[in-house]
This record gives sequence, C-alpha cells and structure tokens, in this order.
Amino acid sequence: MSVLPQPVLVVGTGLIGTSVALGLRRAGVEVLLADRDPEAVGVATRRGAGFALGAPAAAERPDPGVAVTVPPGSVAGAAAPAATPADRAPGMVVVAVPPAATAAVVADALRRWPEAVVTDVASVKAGIHRALAAMEGLPLGRYVGGHPMAGREVSGPAAARADLVDDRPWVVAAHPGSDEDAVAAVQELVLAVRALPVLMTPAEHDRTVALVSHVPQVLSSLLAAQLLDAPEISVSVAGQGLRDMTRIAASDADLWTQILASNSSHVAAVLSALRADLDEMVVALQHGGEEQVGTALRRGNEGRERVPGKHGAATRPTREVPVAVADVPGELGRLFAEVAEAGLSVEDVRIEHVLGRPTGVVEIAVVEDSADDLAARLRTSGWDVRA
Amino acid sequence: MSVLPQPVLVVGTGLIGTSVALGLRRAGVEVLLADRDPEAVGVATRRGAGFALGAPAAAERPDPGVAVTVPPGSVAGAAAPAATPADRAPGMVVVAVPPAATAAVVADALRRWPEAVVTDVASVKAGIHRALAAMEGLPLGRYVGGHPMAGREVSGPAAARADLVDDRPWVVAAHPGSDEDAVAAVQELVLAVRALPVLMTPAEHDRTVALVSHVPQVLSSLLAAQLLDAPEISVSVAGQGLRDMTRIAASDADLWTQILASNSSHVAAVLSALRADLDEMVVALQHGGEEQVGTALRRGNEGRERVPGKHGAATRPTREVPVAVADVPGELGRLFAEVAEAGLSVEDVRIEHVLGRPTGVVEIAVVEDSADDLAARLRTSGWDVRA
Repeated sequence: MSVLPQPVLVVGTGLIGTSVALGLRRAGVEVLLADRDPEAVGVATRRGAGFALGAPAAAERPDPGVAVTVPPGSVAGAAAPAATPADRAPGMVVVAVPPAATAAVVADALRRWPEAVVTDVASVKAGIHRALAAMEGLPLGRYVGGHPMAGREVSGPAAARADLVDDRPWVVAAHPGSDEDAVAAVQELVLAVRALPVLMTPAEHDRTVALVSHVPQVLSSLLAAQLLDAPEISVSVAGQGLRDMTRIAASDADLWTQILASNSSHVAAVLSALRADLDEMVVALQHGGEEQVGTALRRGNEGRERVPGKHGAATRPTREVPVAVADVPGELGRLFAEVAEAGLSVEDVRIEHVLGRPTGVVEIAVVEDSADDLAARLRTSGWDVRA
Repeated sequence: MSVLPQPVLVVGTGLIGTSVALGLRRAGVEVLLADRDPEAVGVATRRGAGFALGAPAAAERPDPGVAVTVPPGSVAGAAAPAATPADRAPGMVVVAVPPAATAAVVADALRRWPEAVVTDVASVKAGIHRALAAMEGLPLGRYVGGHPMAGREVSGPAAARADLVDDRPWVVAAHPGSDEDAVAAVQELVLAVRALPVLMTPAEHDRTVALVSHVPQVLSSLLAAQLLDAPEISVSVAGQGLRDMTRIAASDADLWTQILASNSSHVAAVLSALRADLDEMVVALQHGGEEQVGTALRRGNEGRERVPGKHGAATRPTREVPVAVADVPGELGRLFAEVAEAGLSVEDVRIEHVLGRPTGVVEIAVVEDSADDLAARLRTSGWDVRA
C-alpha cells in the first residue's frame, strides 16, 4: 500500500475539480486549489475544498459556516499565516481543466513541480499523451492520465459534491513510460475519494468510451434529429422506447463536439462497424431477409445482457411490476412504503407516461423471484397492479 | 355522435384482444369472443371478457367470482340459454390475431357478417389493406384498420387488463374506400375503451411507427450487438446512457422480426436517411469537421424537444433533483412521502445505478420552477441532495 503524496494541488476548480477536492478533504487530505478564474477558486475555498495556491492562509480560511476537518499536519486555524499548506510544494497535481487545455496544463505542472505526480481527468486519454510526448524534455514518468466516469448536467464549483465520484469507475490510464510509483499514487488518489480504480491503457480507455459513451451519444442525436421533419401527429404517438432512445440527445452540444473531436478515430471506427450492420439490415429488409433481421435482433438481445445493472456486476434477473398510480401527491410515497414493508429492494423504477389523463403506470423492478409476491401483495392492498 | 354497433365480436383472445374485450365490458358493451384456441377463449370468458361465439350461454357464463356488470339488453343470467348475445350476429368485429394472419381473418369476417364493421389491431396497416384489396369482391367499405399504441412485455389472455389502452393513442387508419359510418363506429369503439383515436391513413401510420418505434428498435439492437465483442472491462464501466440506449434491445426478437418485415420499406427508408447522416458524421470526424459535428448534435437537441413528455403534450420544462439514497427498504417510500408533503407532482423518476456499493442516486424530475424549493426542503430534512 503506497501513500498519497500531499498536499494535492487541484488545477481547475470546476465541477469535477472541486468535487475531487471536496472528496479529498473528506478523507483528511491537504488540498491546494488553482484556477485561472479567481472567483471559481473563491467559491471552492469557501465551500471548504482547500486552500488557494500561494495565498496567505488567513484570507483563504474556509467559510466558518462550512464544516471542515482540519487535517493533521495542517496549521490552518493557527495564528501565523506563514506556514500553511498554501506555501508547500504539491506532492500530486490533479489537472481538471477542459480537454483542449489539458496537455498544456499537465506539461506546465510537470515542469513547475519537479517532485509531483501529475494526473488529469479529461474524458479522452491517448491524444493528451501524444501531445505531451511531442514536447521536448518532459519528465513523463511522473504523468499518469485518469478519467472519473461521472458527471452531471450542471457545472461549476457551486454544483460540486464530495461524493460525486463515490463508487464510480475511475479509469487510471498509465502510459508505457509511467513510473510504477506514480501509478500507485494515482490509484491512492482514486481510493481516497471513494471511487473504483480501473486500470487501462490510454488506447483501451479511448476505445472503451467510444463504444459505451460516445457512440450512444451520436446515435441518440442522429435519431432525435430524424424527428425534426416528422409531422406533429407522428411525434405525438411516440412512446417510452423513443423517449429512452433520445434522452441523451438533450446533452450539451458544444461539450460533446469537443469530446467527439478528441476521440474521433475510435468513434469513427465504432460508427463504421455500426454502419456496416445498418447496411446489412437495410438490405435484409429490402430483400425479405427475415432470417438476417432475426439474427441481428437476437445479437441485440445478447449484447444487452452484458450491460451492467444496479451494482455494476452482471445484471441480476429482475422483473417489472407495473402499478397504475393516480397523479396526485403522495401516491408514490404510499406505494414505495408498501414495497418496503414487503422487505424488497427496488432495483429500478420508471414512470410510464400516458397521454392526456392524470394517471401513470409505475414500473417497479425487483429481483425476479419476488415479482409475483409483490404483485399479489400490492393487489391485496388495493393497488391496481397491471400484470 | 354515432353509436357503437353491438355486440362486438373480438377474434383472437390474446393480450390485446382480451384487454379490448375487458375494456368494452367495463363500458357495458356486449362482447362475443372467438379464438382458434378454445382454451384461450375459456380463460377470457372466465375473466369476464364476454361470451364465446355460438356457445350456449350457461356454459359460458362468466366465473361468478369475477364482477361483471350485465349490460342493458343482455339476457345473461336469465334462465333460458337460447337468446344470449352469443347467438346474435356481431355489429362490429375486432380482429386481434398475429399480423401475418390478420388479412385472412378480416376477409373472413367481412364475408361472414354482412352487416358488421370490421377493424383490426395489427401494428402495420398498409400491407393488410393491400392484401385485402387484392382479394376479389370483398366489401371493403366496412373495413377500417386500427392500431392501439400500447403493449406489454407479457402476452396471453391471463395478462390482459381492462385499462391496457386507457389514455393511449389508438390510430384509426381508414383507407380511401372506408365508409364514413364505419370510420365513426371504429372511433366509438376506441372511445368506449377510453383510448384516444388518432386518424391517419395506412401509409401515414406505417411511416409514423417506422420512425417512432421500429427504427429506435433497430438502433438499440445494433448498438447492443456492438457490445458482444467488447472486453468485459469496457462493458463494466458503462453508465446510464448506454443502459437507456440498449433497454429495448431486450425485446422479443421473433415478434420484432415479423413487425420489421411487414413494414420493411418504411423502416428501410428511415434507416437509409439515418445512414446518410451517419456517413456525414463519420466523414466529419475523420476530417476534423467539428462544425458539422456540432450542427448534428444541435439538431439532436431540437429533435429531442419534440418528444412528448408525461401527458403527451409538449414537454413541460422539468429539472431533476438528485438525492443519494441508501439501498435499504423504506428509503424510497420516505423520500416520496416527503416530496408529496411538498405538494409536488413527480414528472419522472430514475435510479442512477452505482458500482459496487449499496447506495444509489434517485433523480426526481419536477417542474423546473419547483426544483430549487424541493432541493432546499429535502436538504433541510437531512436528505443528501446532490445539486
């Protein structure tokens, strides 16, 4: 077990950077903060995410309204401002700036802090490593890329949460020249914020996110775009399937343009494979190739079974118990209280939307063996179970 | 306002047919039932869905354990079995057999019941009309196709529900030769089971379901199939986006093969349009065309806004309030009780799954204006609100 080098300097106090800083503080780690926007650093320090890099301690002491555990060894709160962590060289630097700026900031950190391990949180990895390798004389052994697989539809330090990455996979993407100690230190960082380190090469990482994140985004956007020219009446009869398939089409277009551009070759490769399957499907449909259509759909059945469920492990077999619920406050509470009384854990919940009238169907997914019992129990209590 | 011709004969007592029959009985309509499988008819009659066609009344009287309102004019329950609805010619026939068998059964009904309006519930419409038009001497004025936009992942008369189509769109797809009275009668049928009649031509219907239902199914299946060759570690880091995008890939492959085959030209047309957009995206990614990528994503944003929300109308702006919840029975009940106390209606719910540890984040969507209030209120009560 190695030790996390301290203090940890977080460069870039946006949503991810400040969340990581708060998670580190929760673990009692000394944290320094930097951002080209002093206001962002101000918000982060006031939220107790750490000390501003190089600032006098008194000015940066966290807001007294925010509970902060003063880490052992820190002299925050002491009378003299001179010896705060803000004056000490960081043992680790976490670069949490936008993808396009990441390589330059990592290079700067490697040069400026000759003892520090440097990592980043950008959502693509190989391009950053290539950019760094092209710079002369960088000590790249101390650099290990990373990517916490978490995010929110909001941004900025005010939206940050100490538990943003709790239990989430955090890819640690060491390159061939990464020092073993540096890799171990980054894994310690990930564990300190309660995320789950997953070791991949940068190329493996980029292929992975192309498949499980970037291509789904493209497909959702392209499908949603098909709706633009559809008559209103057609769109009005759409159901849950289309809603699921277009949900992420609402994502931030500018951010995703950057992400897709920086992982373009892997994304293009998966999209090309998909296009080939699409071609086959079109040909099969045009020429009565029902057998091929069936094969494609069955391959889809099998692929879906690989998608991880609630606890990340292979999906536990669950079954949905559909219950009609009036759209009045309190009904969902009554329903879930009843499910709880049955001692059951809810694996998933969805509300099936209905047109025009104030009723809905709540689908409660529970482990398969319990579904019949739950349905019977709810019926006995007068619920309108639809199965 | 026209009148629904009675009795209504439902041919095919599977999930949809029996559900429609139960819905008609709920409205006090006389219903006759037929199926080539006598056991299916037996289950449906015992559930109170109607009388078996041509059977003596006594034998087919509904199970006394099932509450059935005896419709006015019906003599069910009278001593003499002779004059039951089972002996009367139907005024309307609802054909609810598998798509491939639909045209033949519709043709048979048109010939056998010279006074009856005939409709069906198959999920594609133009092909059935073409098949009927090709048959010599059929009185097609009395035929009006239909399609209730509802379904379940289960099948058979035992799973049927009187409210299966409540508040759902039910496409009434008159062909150019349909009699006006017949169209009005089918609309009455739809209203009697509390569904929402939506008038379209058969071609409009088939184009619509290709876009909002069949193509999403194909994309989900093809995306899920891409996961088959991925290493376990890649699949293990997948998140909610991939889960949403592959949910319907779990659908019944045999049923969907039939559906896609019978709407192949429209599905192929939409898939081809999508493939063209996919091609452009691949080229843009391969040649640094960030502007095109951005445009495609923004078109996706706009398309997504057209997808109907909870009440079928244009989506009301909602915002999600994420709350961390321990995975123990009762927590969801407590949470929704609290939301109810705030007097808020829940527009949507999802559980964000986490890896490895027994916690989850429940995202509660409420109307945008209420989101901040709800978050503040839940925080005050000690909930771990993540925004």
